Amino acid sequence: MRSKPLSSSSNQKAQSGAAGKLCMDVLRLYDPAWVLATEAFRLHRIQRGMVIYLCFFKGATKDVIPKIVNSVVNVKLSESDTGKRVSVIDLPGDVLIVPQATLGGKAKGRSMQYHANADKVLGMELFAQFISQCQQELESHPSWVEAGAVLHHGTYGNRQVLQLDTNGPYTHLLEF
Amino acid sequence: MRSKPLSSSSNQKAQSGAAGKLCMDVLRLYDPAWVLATEAFRLHRIQRGMVIYLCFFKGATKDVIPKIVNSVVNVKLSESDTGKRVSVIDLPGDVLIVPQATLGGKAKGRSMQYHANADKVLGMELFAQFISQCQQELESHPSWVEAGAVLHHGTYGNRQVLQLDTNGPYTHLLEF
Repeated sequence: MRSKPLSSSSNQKAQSGAAGKLCMDVLRLYDPAWVLATEAFRLHRIQRGMVIYLCFFKGATKDVIPKIVNSVVNVKLSESDTGKRVSVIDLPGDVLIVPQATLGGKAKGRSMQYHANADKVLGMELFAQFISQCQQELESHPSWVEAGAVLHHGTYGNRQVLQLDTNGPYTHLLEF
Repeated sequence: MRSKPLSSSSNQKAQSGAAGKLCMDVLRLYDPAWVLATEAFRLHRIQRGMVIYLCFFKGATKDVIPKIVNSVVNVKLSESDTGKRVSVIDLPGDVLIVPQATLGGKAKGRSMQYHANADKVLGMELFAQFISQCQQELESHPSWVEAGAVLHHGTYGNRQVLQLDTNGPYTHLLEF
């Protein structure tokens, strides 16, 4: 991890003042079902768990990453076999992280504009740090590791091919 | 359509001041692929097109519906065979509308709260009106109808089972 803070050249935050946006689809499947993402000929498959779409805005710094990781890991977004809300750690469930720059889009007339998004260099760096810290945090929970749960992620800047199989999309948006 | 405005009992808007939130996944598939949503034993299948998750907030009125319909129908979120951005009308593409109350959630500590959401009676009424106006608007475009494109929708208040098959999730969020 770098020792100096990351920031965009302009350090200008998005209009909303947010540093990033998460869109989380929780897959509540009981039967063995899966999610598949492919890009650049790599396949990533997860089972019961959570798909995270992530977009960083201009002015985002690495300081926001622990907050996002904390939410991903600890907020009770999953559903246990008994119907109780639990965290992905307590499920325990898989995690698939997909970079999704379109989340930062705003409609102007009939077109979408992406001026609030972090530039590609900053976005790629923050995405890499997020993956790394998320993996570290998940692996610090022995019960998650012992259950054989996995984290997979897409590649920043590539088109992601995605299949979802869910017994209820359960989509949440979080801003940081 | 009702002649008097719909409003929630409190007429209190969500903290953000928004009346509703849309999360749109555009399916850019070239090969025949499909999306399947089931609830209460009904199956809805669409092909190339757009999946819309929709959530209304407290204080939303029917006045917001034409604005949402206008965005769904006219904003260039789809990708033509030549890679050009086009509207779902110009694609022409199918539309699947899924009520998704979780979009209105806010994290409080480790739990999600949904206090900003419209109550069930208001939400159900606005959802029904949205479907109706969306269908009407889409069908006013002969090229969309003649292409055999369809609109399907889930059932408000039911768990929706969803399968997605996409050559790139292309997720946008719009607030109204």
